[in-house]
Amino acid sequence: MSTTPPTDRVRLRRQHTRGAYDKASIHSILDVMPMCSVGYVFDGRPLVTPTFQWREGNDVFWHGSSASRMLRAVEAADVCLTVAVLDGLVVARSGFHHSVNYRSVMLLGNARKVDDPEEMEARLKTFVDGLFPRRWDTLRPATAQELRATTVMTMPIDEAAAKVRTGPPVDDEEDYALSIWGGVIPIRMQVLDPVPDPRNIPGVEPPEHTLNDRLG
Amino acid sequence: MSTTPPTDRVRLRRQHTRGAYDKASIHSILDVMPMCSVGYVFDGRPLVTPTFQWREGNDVFWHGSSASRMLRAVEAADVCLTVAVLDGLVVARSGFHHSVNYRSVMLLGNARKVDDPEEMEARLKTFVDGLFPRRWDTLRPATAQELRATTVMTMPIDEAAAKVRTGPPVDDEEDYALSIWGGVIPIRMQVLDPVPDPRNIPGVEPPEHTLNDRLG
Repeated sequence: MSTTPPTDRVRLRRQHTRGAYDKASIHSILDVMPMCSVGYVFDGRPLVTPTFQWREGNDVFWHGSSASRMLRAVEAADVCLTVAVLDGLVVARSGFHHSVNYRSVMLLGNARKVDDPEEMEARLKTFVDGLFPRRWDTLRPATAQELRATTVMTMPIDEAAAKVRTGPPVDDEEDYALSIWGGVIPIRMQVLDPVPDPRNIPGVEPPEHTLNDRLG
Repeated sequence: MSTTPPTDRVRLRRQHTRGAYDKASIHSILDVMPMCSVGYVFDGRPLVTPTFQWREGNDVFWHGSSASRMLRAVEAADVCLTVAVLDGLVVARSGFHHSVNYRSVMLLGNARKVDDPEEMEARLKTFVDGLFPRRWDTLRPATAQELRATTVMTMPIDEAAAKVRTGPPVDDEEDYALSIWGGVIPIRMQVLDPVPDPRNIPGVEPPEHTLNDRLG
């Protein structure tokens, strides 16, 4: 995929070797971590809302209650959406060189509300099916009232940067001679076995799509 | 611990049964998840920086390079710091009632730079030792140059809210009769075995503090 020249707002100023501006890098991080932070300005002050995002092509989406303060505040407003995957703790021979292995994305843009009800329902289907393949069509269909109570926001992935750190600590050269353990403590998101709702009707087995391990 | 009356900015407007404003709830979430999002306003627009936070008493801290755009922008400025722990995906009988189990904190305040070099070093020690008990004193000591290159920011935990969802899906009463699997897919942060730096000197074993499983 093509590389987008970074704008001045998203370009990494320091540690620029950690930066990537190509769509493949950005999309791959958005696709493994639904949890995101949506930052916006409300009454002149910053607010951040943790929520879930999903991607279709070069657009990112998030949703919530139509009564949400966040969703009403971000309509046609500047938004900074970030995703961060924690991959490990980097343990060095000095405090200064301790670090973190991670994959992150910062995405800037102007948020747009998905107004068309049919488009909105199609986007929500992609959201559910992205987490649980082919689940949407197995569900009790959405009602008009539920769709009215739901707002979906979107932003193109145009002004964005990925930032990635991998590998062992980078210590001062002379510190490698010290008798201090250096290395990485890997961290990953672990998806455990499904816990059935006690109110499931007898004999209903967890579908295949609840057993996958796609995240992280 | 005492309960702080929530300000209007942090009080949950919807799903208020998920909210908690007591220090114990807020502190416990901050303590299990170092990764946070720092939201601030830069040139009138929102920016969010993923970074690590740590807590001492009723204050939260974060740090970075003294050259960091974020750290210079947030000094004496309004900040919204959030922490979110993803505990599971909640799988319901309708798309509408799918949800997420999580523990999150939103903390608002005015960020202050830790100016005193001795205080700053003490805070950094708490940060490292919080992740790796008693590690700081085993390290090559910090140099004056390293401390100058580091900025530590702080904010009191005064205007804050925790938000927590647990448990199975809450479906429409009539949907419980459907032959659709409902339940929770638990998710946790998994800390794996330490990976030694290939440049460790022979015979250095990973210390106990790299083997613990305190996060998540």
